[in-house]
Amino acid sequence: MSREAAKNAKIGGICIFFFAPSRLRVTTVNITTPAFLVDRTIVEQNCARMRTKARSSGVAFRPHVKTHKTIEIGRMQHGGETGPITVSTMAEAEFFADAGFRDITYAVPIAPEKLPRVASLAARMERLNILLDSHAALRAVEEFHAAQGTVFDVFLKVDCGYHRAGVDPNDPDSATLAIALANSPAVHFQGLLTHAGHSYNAHDVDEIRRIAAEETSSLTRFRALIGLDDLTRSIGSTPTTSVVDTFTDTDEVRPGNYVFFDAFQATLGSCSIHDVAVSVLATVVGSYPERGEAIIDAGALALSKDVSPEHLDPNFGYGIVCDVALHPLAARLVSLSQEHGKVKMAAPPVVGTRVRIVPNHSCLTAAMYDRYHVIDGDAIVDEWRPVRGW
Amino acid sequence: MSREAAKNAKIGGICIFFFAPSRLRVTTVNITTPAFLVDRTIVEQNCARMRTKARSSGVAFRPHVKTHKTIEIGRMQHGGETGPITVSTMAEAEFFADAGFRDITYAVPIAPEKLPRVASLAARMERLNILLDSHAALRAVEEFHAAQGTVFDVFLKVDCGYHRAGVDPNDPDSATLAIALANSPAVHFQGLLTHAGHSYNAHDVDEIRRIAAEETSSLTRFRALIGLDDLTRSIGSTPTTSVVDTFTDTDEVRPGNYVFFDAFQATLGSCSIHDVAVSVLATVVGSYPERGEAIIDAGALALSKDVSPEHLDPNFGYGIVCDVALHPLAARLVSLSQEHGKVKMAAPPVVGTRVRIVPNHSCLTAAMYDRYHVIDGDAIVDEWRPVRGW
Repeated sequence: MSREAAKNAKIGGICIFFFAPSRLRVTTVNITTPAFLVDRTIVEQNCARMRTKARSSGVAFRPHVKTHKTIEIGRMQHGGETGPITVSTMAEAEFFADAGFRDITYAVPIAPEKLPRVASLAARMERLNILLDSHAALRAVEEFHAAQGTVFDVFLKVDCGYHRAGVDPNDPDSATLAIALANSPAVHFQGLLTHAGHSYNAHDVDEIRRIAAEETSSLTRFRALIGLDDLTRSIGSTPTTSVVDTFTDTDEVRPGNYVFFDAFQATLGSCSIHDVAVSVLATVVGSYPERGEAIIDAGALALSKDVSPEHLDPNFGYGIVCDVALHPLAARLVSLSQEHGKVKMAAPPVVGTRVRIVPNHSCLTAAMYDRYHVIDGDAIVDEWRPVRGW
Repeated sequence: MSREAAKNAKIGGICIFFFAPSRLRVTTVNITTPAFLVDRTIVEQNCARMRTKARSSGVAFRPHVKTHKTIEIGRMQHGGETGPITVSTMAEAEFFADAGFRDITYAVPIAPEKLPRVASLAARMERLNILLDSHAALRAVEEFHAAQGTVFDVFLKVDCGYHRAGVDPNDPDSATLAIALANSPAVHFQGLLTHAGHSYNAHDVDEIRRIAAEETSSLTRFRALIGLDDLTRSIGSTPTTSVVDTFTDTDEVRPGNYVFFDAFQATLGSCSIHDVAVSVLATVVGSYPERGEAIIDAGALALSKDVSPEHLDPNFGYGIVCDVALHPLAARLVSLSQEHGKVKMAAPPVVGTRVRIVPNHSCLTAAMYDRYHVIDGDAIVDEWRPVRGW
């Protein structure tokens, strides 16, 4: 898009929203709704803040790219260069490797069927770390090694209290598995990795800080127990890495959602609402003043059906409804069907009005789009395309 | 894919699942998980049943394509040919028009900003119906007509009790809008359209049948009130069109989800579990017998976070967990994060085991995939690619 065209593609301000909806329709004529808007300045600020914190703390920085899945933001996370990253799918790993990222951790416990694909990609990279937490997975790695000769870079997943994946650091068998990894000819045992996903269930920042302390200390204790001091201790969730002032008692951090943040993180206290970099632009397609409702053209496929932070506010709804200038409205997005969103509000705007929705969970919302509209102030300045699938 | 290769790509049976997981890994080596499996025979049966019912009832059949978004199933809905269809996005309208579908209803209330795109597509088709339910939308249509000369084929959306979009048939202003549509030079007023989405909130088949009767009668009463007898009365939701034996008191039916059905429709009573044509193939990547849990590599991006039918069973979870032969297991999919699903079960299977998940809401799950793996019995026979975006 030319700079001139970009200047004309204004998102508009609150005055335009309230007094000249027809002008908005003209100025955004090239953006069909729903559209995913990414504020470049805010993303840059979010990236710089976390990167600076990691550098000043003296820890390695391996940010997750699963939230945005774009090369542009992957480089922004490292200050405009490639660098170590974390991914959630092999499709991401291949996409970023093709763009020059040479050191990647695939941070979902490995499915044995994916080992051939991992081996193939690892052969053309500096390092591709995989994750496992079971003797069964180690056996699959060793069988593959016996057949193909591949030696895999491996992190052991440790459960620091989230109870999703990971070995229990207090179970003696976990130490047995760690020792087996250290001694396996099929494995370069790189480190211990944990994710304090239970920080998302916290009720306030103090609780997140307590979980952050558990996240680091669980790895430090387990490493001391097994006596393998050169293992990297890798931690990271956006809430825990956002609320601490400095990273201590760890070697590597891997936050991801912080590039965008979202309504959930702002409600939880990981960030302020002004740090949220993304929104969904939608159009009011139905207005029903008699029942205090509007229908927008952003439904479950434009927003995802994530209802967090319902543990903090059971009536939160499916996102924060704002005018186009991102001023929150006294409105609640109460239900989503495939292509419709229902908004409760005392004075619903007329059909054709544009609104913006701050999504509850930016990772899931971003994944619904083939392209992001990048904004700078109220102008569209670029278009970024995420990788998708597996 | 060749027939020979297809024969070798077996999904496997229950014996294989329990006694030879390694064989499964070999036979499905070319399908990475998560993958979306579509059983062609069941889709054909579902398509034939609804099409036959519409034909024997003497009503027009304009099935929705938003559930599958593929040309292949669009044709299957019409017995192997193109025919009238309903879409939920302009992207679908353009995709199906390009494949020869000439008569399409875009069944979301029109956003004024989309009129230029509608006009452009309509110019190369037999008919592209749009939907509206407000004087404001009619004004936008008339302004566009005044500037460009386009005459739009329009349905008036009527609310039969769902209270999402549509005019209240008992409000005198609704008749005023209908008369304005009939008299507008910008409009070919084609008919009245309603969708009994509240059938999804029903508790049993009798309640669905009562809602089906309201769905049709609300249009018949409103048409009599306004005295425009040549308007088409168009109805359709999968629950209401599935439970009736014949279509009466209507002119056109538009179900969509029936091609796939899902865990929700089976629980609600629209179909039996054996009519569900789709599942997500996943791999167990974590197994934790001590806490009775497994982690699979199908999370929110592989399944969607739709929790329906929670009004029928608050503990239903995010889908029905089955072995690869689609025998439901005594297991519950209790939580989803981006790429992880957590399954509660007394004896979790070992890492590497394949399972299948019958999704809660097939429309939202299908939309997460760029391609569907089409199966015939236990062989993969084809690959279909849906349109996506807006």
